[in-house]
Amino acid sequence: MLLIGGCGAASLVDEAGDTPLFVYDMNIVERQLQVLRDAMPKELSLHYAVKANPHPGLLERMVRLVDGFDVASGGELARALAAGMDAAHISFAGPGKREDELVAAIDAGITLNLESEGEARRALAIAEKRGRIPRLAVRVNPDFDLKGSGMRMGGGAKPFGVDADRAAALARSLIAAGADWRGWHIFAGSQALDAEALIDTQAATVGLAARLSNEVGASPPLVNLGGGFGIPYFPGDQRLDVAPIGEALGQIMNARPDILSTSKFAIELGRWIVGEAGVYLTRVIDVKQSKGETFVVVDGGLHHQLAASGNFGTVVRRNYPIAVANRYGAPAAEEAVTIVGCLCTPIDKLGDKVSLPAVAEGDLIAIFVAGAYGASASPAAFLGHPPALELLLG
Amino acid sequence: MLLIGGCGAASLVDEAGDTPLFVYDMNIVERQLQVLRDAMPKELSLHYAVKANPHPGLLERMVRLVDGFDVASGGELARALAAGMDAAHISFAGPGKREDELVAAIDAGITLNLESEGEARRALAIAEKRGRIPRLAVRVNPDFDLKGSGMRMGGGAKPFGVDADRAAALARSLIAAGADWRGWHIFAGSQALDAEALIDTQAATVGLAARLSNEVGASPPLVNLGGGFGIPYFPGDQRLDVAPIGEALGQIMNARPDILSTSKFAIELGRWIVGEAGVYLTRVIDVKQSKGETFVVVDGGLHHQLAASGNFGTVVRRNYPIAVANRYGAPAAEEAVTIVGCLCTPIDKLGDKVSLPAVAEGDLIAIFVAGAYGASASPAAFLGHPPALELLLG
Repeated sequence: MLLIGGCGAASLVDEAGDTPLFVYDMNIVERQLQVLRDAMPKELSLHYAVKANPHPGLLERMVRLVDGFDVASGGELARALAAGMDAAHISFAGPGKREDELVAAIDAGITLNLESEGEARRALAIAEKRGRIPRLAVRVNPDFDLKGSGMRMGGGAKPFGVDADRAAALARSLIAAGADWRGWHIFAGSQALDAEALIDTQAATVGLAARLSNEVGASPPLVNLGGGFGIPYFPGDQRLDVAPIGEALGQIMNARPDILSTSKFAIELGRWIVGEAGVYLTRVIDVKQSKGETFVVVDGGLHHQLAASGNFGTVVRRNYPIAVANRYGAPAAEEAVTIVGCLCTPIDKLGDKVSLPAVAEGDLIAIFVAGAYGASASPAAFLGHPPALELLLG
Repeated sequence: MLLIGGCGAASLVDEAGDTPLFVYDMNIVERQLQVLRDAMPKELSLHYAVKANPHPGLLERMVRLVDGFDVASGGELARALAAGMDAAHISFAGPGKREDELVAAIDAGITLNLESEGEARRALAIAEKRGRIPRLAVRVNPDFDLKGSGMRMGGGAKPFGVDADRAAALARSLIAAGADWRGWHIFAGSQALDAEALIDTQAATVGLAARLSNEVGASPPLVNLGGGFGIPYFPGDQRLDVAPIGEALGQIMNARPDILSTSKFAIELGRWIVGEAGVYLTRVIDVKQSKGETFVVVDGGLHHQLAASGNFGTVVRRNYPIAVANRYGAPAAEEAVTIVGCLCTPIDKLGDKVSLPAVAEGDLIAIFVAGAYGASASPAAFLGHPPALELLLG
């Protein structure tokens, strides 16, 4: 039997009451963060990107484990505050912040990472109306991207942030308007497994922050270096070693230009912190043959784990790691099987020609690396099935 | 101003109270169904596939417009019954029906389209326990597919239904077990714009149903021919002409083999009935420049309209039809713009290099063909933004 956080998968399902079930193991989260603390410079702040997994219980635990939260909506902001994160350590990035979101952010006193001159204008107007000094950072669309990243967020025309050549002017205008200018947010990409690429990007990011700050003529209180640390999903993916990244970042920070000497630095990670801490457990409803192939039909599907079905920003579908939880470690059967969800659509495929021990009705299938962009990033209402349960361990 | 069901888009937003907003125009639904009734043989039953749009108000209206509902889950079954559809005219297909779903279906007296021998065994056992005679049809994985369909659901190893060469044996076993055998469900594909391909598939489907029925030695009460009628989404898509399909189907039904002489026939359509009746309205939050490109940032996004972002079963992203609702018919500006949603992810793109009239903050963007697989088929919780509103017209 597969153990998660020391507990048998079947007992966890009993405890939760049903399948499909996401289990999040806080021990793994804590271990990841310990690895990160050990590797990174002591003075670096570690932020959690709430979007990766906004489970309320997980956020409550996370408050004590990280130095800040990054949110992407008014809804995430409300959850961050409800979890007990200090507003002074919350920042909000997102290309389309609505009026009510700007109001909530300014009233709460969190930092807005401004995405455009228009958003700056709107934020300043709201702050004036409400008699507040807004905490405003400038999100920069960098001139470089993060090589090998799953999603590039810099290096070209982008909807995120303002182009680097306009960022200093925007920061100056914020200072002139009496805002509390908080510094820079520079996010070049995500899900990279190449330490060298991440080091290069962090060096370029610090360089860009220094150049922009010199243009402004002021030291930024905070430089948010973004994230981008990837996790292994597929065969051949090499686990990212964060030790050399931390070492290089320490050198970069030690050698930083004078204008950044009093600045704090932060990285924001979501997927890297929680992704591997999650397992999606789903029960086998049927095992059936069609034209010589075996299909294993489970009670879960893409309505809970869209990413695992290959329909969320991926071009080529690949299998997430999969096991039979109640036959964990048993030798694989001769024939590979295809695992499909319960949805009545051909795109609901969770495992294509997977080598597994012989599977039977009632077995529990475990899909790993389900801690990030799972339950909250899937079309839960699609076809009217119940939502997945979520269980927090440790 | 764009009119939807005779009402200005801005007034509809006022009426609903906010954006983003899905508007469904029942006049268009009724028109589509009238076109269908006019084209199809009189004795053909028209079923609505609830999965395309399960909006409760829409279902209530649909009850009086079609001859039956096809559902894909216990949740959809509950909605179908709540909308007032007679259980005798509801059928339930889906490769992974849970125990509680089988119980609900058998208790309600709807028809289960059985997907495997295992499901037949489970359904019969439940019916016996509950003292019911279950209404059971056999879903067949046909030996052919629907050419040119967006999603092929036949012609190879599939998780749907039982292979044609085992279907008759399964039907015989149902009859032998004392079940109320309802006939065949044969669904070969979806979203086809080629009338000839649909005609060929319907002919093959009737032929297969006759062959299987002869094998069984009994006439099926109902032959569900599936759906597959596509709608135009993209430039160059030719609107499907249903008149020749209806004419051909009339000939096919008139010439049907004796074993089917007393059988009823049905087609089930979802997207074709409601897809073009929906418009997604979303407000422009920001218009920004990056590296010479213009980005229009709206308050909606892939969390409401995943399919329009190209992340739902599509390989190559293409733009859905888009307009500026409050400048409808105005000449296009010289520069094409990119329309992105409010989500902080690069995959939240709703329109790539679209020719539109000059766009400003506060404008309303309309994305058409939003009546099917929109609100219910999107990751509504992703990034913590509010759900879309829905408004039913006509």
